[in-house]
Amino acid sequence: MSSLSKFMSANVVLSKLATNKQYAENLPYVEGMKAYDNNPFHPVKNPNGVILMNLADNQLSVDLIKEYLTKKNLQISIEFFRKLANFQDYHGLPEYTEAIAKYMEETRGGKVKFDPKRVVMSAEANGAKQTLISCLADPGDALLDLSYLRRFAKDIRWGTNVQLVPISCKSSNNFKITIEAIKETFEKVQEEKIKVKGMILSNPSNPLGTILDRDTLKKILTFTNEHNIHLVCDEIYAGTVFDAPQFVSIAEIMDEISCVNKKLVHIVSSVSKEVGFPGFQVEIVYSFNDDVVNCARKMSSFSLVSSLTQHSLPSMFGNGFIEKFLIENTKKLRERHEKFTSELEKVGIKCLKSNAGVYCWVDLRTLLKEQTPDAEESLRKQIINDAKLNISPGSSFSCSEAGWFRICFANIDDQTMEIALQRIQKFVQSNTRKLML
Amino acid sequence: MSSLSKFMSANVVLSKLATNKQYAENLPYVEGMKAYDNNPFHPVKNPNGVILMNLADNQLSVDLIKEYLTKKNLQISIEFFRKLANFQDYHGLPEYTEAIAKYMEETRGGKVKFDPKRVVMSAEANGAKQTLISCLADPGDALLDLSYLRRFAKDIRWGTNVQLVPISCKSSNNFKITIEAIKETFEKVQEEKIKVKGMILSNPSNPLGTILDRDTLKKILTFTNEHNIHLVCDEIYAGTVFDAPQFVSIAEIMDEISCVNKKLVHIVSSVSKEVGFPGFQVEIVYSFNDDVVNCARKMSSFSLVSSLTQHSLPSMFGNGFIEKFLIENTKKLRERHEKFTSELEKVGIKCLKSNAGVYCWVDLRTLLKEQTPDAEESLRKQIINDAKLNISPGSSFSCSEAGWFRICFANIDDQTMEIALQRIQKFVQSNTRKLML
Repeated sequence: MSSLSKFMSANVVLSKLATNKQYAENLPYVEGMKAYDNNPFHPVKNPNGVILMNLADNQLSVDLIKEYLTKKNLQISIEFFRKLANFQDYHGLPEYTEAIAKYMEETRGGKVKFDPKRVVMSAEANGAKQTLISCLADPGDALLDLSYLRRFAKDIRWGTNVQLVPISCKSSNNFKITIEAIKETFEKVQEEKIKVKGMILSNPSNPLGTILDRDTLKKILTFTNEHNIHLVCDEIYAGTVFDAPQFVSIAEIMDEISCVNKKLVHIVSSVSKEVGFPGFQVEIVYSFNDDVVNCARKMSSFSLVSSLTQHSLPSMFGNGFIEKFLIENTKKLRERHEKFTSELEKVGIKCLKSNAGVYCWVDLRTLLKEQTPDAEESLRKQIINDAKLNISPGSSFSCSEAGWFRICFANIDDQTMEIALQRIQKFVQSNTRKLML
Repeated sequence: MSSLSKFMSANVVLSKLATNKQYAENLPYVEGMKAYDNNPFHPVKNPNGVILMNLADNQLSVDLIKEYLTKKNLQISIEFFRKLANFQDYHGLPEYTEAIAKYMEETRGGKVKFDPKRVVMSAEANGAKQTLISCLADPGDALLDLSYLRRFAKDIRWGTNVQLVPISCKSSNNFKITIEAIKETFEKVQEEKIKVKGMILSNPSNPLGTILDRDTLKKILTFTNEHNIHLVCDEIYAGTVFDAPQFVSIAEIMDEISCVNKKLVHIVSSVSKEVGFPGFQVEIVYSFNDDVVNCARKMSSFSLVSSLTQHSLPSMFGNGFIEKFLIENTKKLRERHEKFTSELEKVGIKCLKSNAGVYCWVDLRTLLKEQTPDAEESLRKQIINDAKLNISPGSSFSCSEAGWFRICFANIDDQTMEIALQRIQKFVQSNTRKLML
């Protein structure tokens, strides 16, 4: 063996990040997407194909945006090109961060002010959360996770070696977060000598579609404040609240509790997901802590939002368009939610009562052969094989009870929704009969 | 003190990343940019303002691109909007990665093929390098740095805790990289019990503007291959080679040496910087190692390139536009370089002989009061104060000899260049006289 070929056979040593393979794509999400890729639904070309009901995007009002942006604003003038093509300041175009701050105010009912200088650009929603978590916690530390997105937790563990420890919620209590459950988990993690650096919650909740009430928010903030730990609020779906009660942002609560240390409070927000152009990747880190703003901004300088995208947004503001859009969009979300839940009820399927988000938390326990994770996974596979619907099982959200699924209702058009509902109804009826035999 | 206010005064504990403050903006770069922000040059409104000659961008052919993109391709059709707005696959639009692979081939003289499946999207050039380094090295490890970008090394140290150890180069040898210098540093680092995971080089060199010859590249690749360490080639300026000799990519060399382990070779490339729309952030990680491609792609999923940007690129290819652009652009770079260096020579200032890049490595040692880093820094300050030119000192590039500066010659228009050259000439003449007194 020559000295060169000896080295050829030697192991190539990559970093722990590249070799731990925790990022490997082995989750139901990936399998479902593959099923879709192999057999995608099309109303004419492939009417029996797989319909995606696992993407938490809003497509209900995309026509409004489409018309507005394509007619008016995505045509870049010659004069403007040079400025945009050259623009690289990692603070972002001032008109962009101002538009985002304004959007954040608008979607929170104008009840709080946001400072454009605290807006840090991000080009992906989970990336925004990852950035924040990197600012707050070191490898080995933990955050309590009230938003239970298991796939995200897995990615965070992989990327930062920070643990997200889910707080247990139960159907008997409508999956409400209780301070008791928080305390219990907090103490348990500390007993294991793991440092708890904070909590992360989603409000509106993903996957529940519910919002946190003022009282619960106050209790949570008081808890994190008393323990001098961080509170990260994922308010990515703040603009999707389509029914009473009104959404309450943590930014509002902060002003209502005395002696809150604002430096412990951080928000993740989104324009893309709510408005209906997720591909444009307009996501935001917002912190009340200067050091976090600076650190997150520095991190963001390694992956900048294209100035082309930064340019497309500001024009939507200041002329009343976005205000009208939000009203219209809320109406459409409410109607679609009503349609979706009432059609499911016709075959005896209930959703957790919700007033926000672009998804429902659907109780399919009656379709399980037994109340186990394996049975849930079997049901998921059966649904994608027989009904050709890709939906997300509770296991993807660290749900401790088998049989709950997140089904997205706003990422498909009316016609596709009709077909999806017929398939669900047929599937439920046929499988309920089978179980009863 | 109440229990709440006690916590108010407690220290908020952030991560080591956020608290080590190594990212703090205290380098000459930032000071220079501030001077510009306070007093920016404008041909009419502020003719005595600061001119930026520190931005390594190409603006010479921006009109070609501008005309092409604005007339034809940045107007997004209504039919196209939905697809683009929705597109979120982190593998990228197939037409985007294909266009990038084609661009990489084109700028390397069509002598090598690139596989679109190995193209990983990145939204920032240093971010692309950071991603690669995270795939290859763990905290505490080192890479030998043949590209000496000190600011980048500092950022990498901050973000990944990987050390970039510069290889010493000297003016006596025209700053050429020698295998002897590499070996010496390699052994020295190993003696300190630090694991050397690879080398990173820039070809064409930034800041030198020179390219590595075939023989040196072969020696370097043989060295990394024999030691089973990685070779990261920053080929970001591959498309800016404006004079003989021809550019040689590491991808070419790989095929010429027997028994090279391709899994150890990785490339960083750029479209934005070369073509003239840095703000659009079209940067690329390319690896011949599947695990690195997968890991880098997973990392890239946390900061995606806007589908709007992905859409703007592919149309430039396949109809002969980019081929014509590259010919025209090369001509312009050559002319500008010739103009710049000859005007400097008129006042006795020499540049390192170069044939690539958008900058020159300029020898201002005759203007130093003494050959020390402090004198270099004084000279930099004097140039920005008196001549109102922001240029980058050798200290920003870990240069071991005082008095060398990187001056960018392609990021300003002809008229501004005339003014900049007059200022340099006047400054040199006046200060040479002073030094002679």
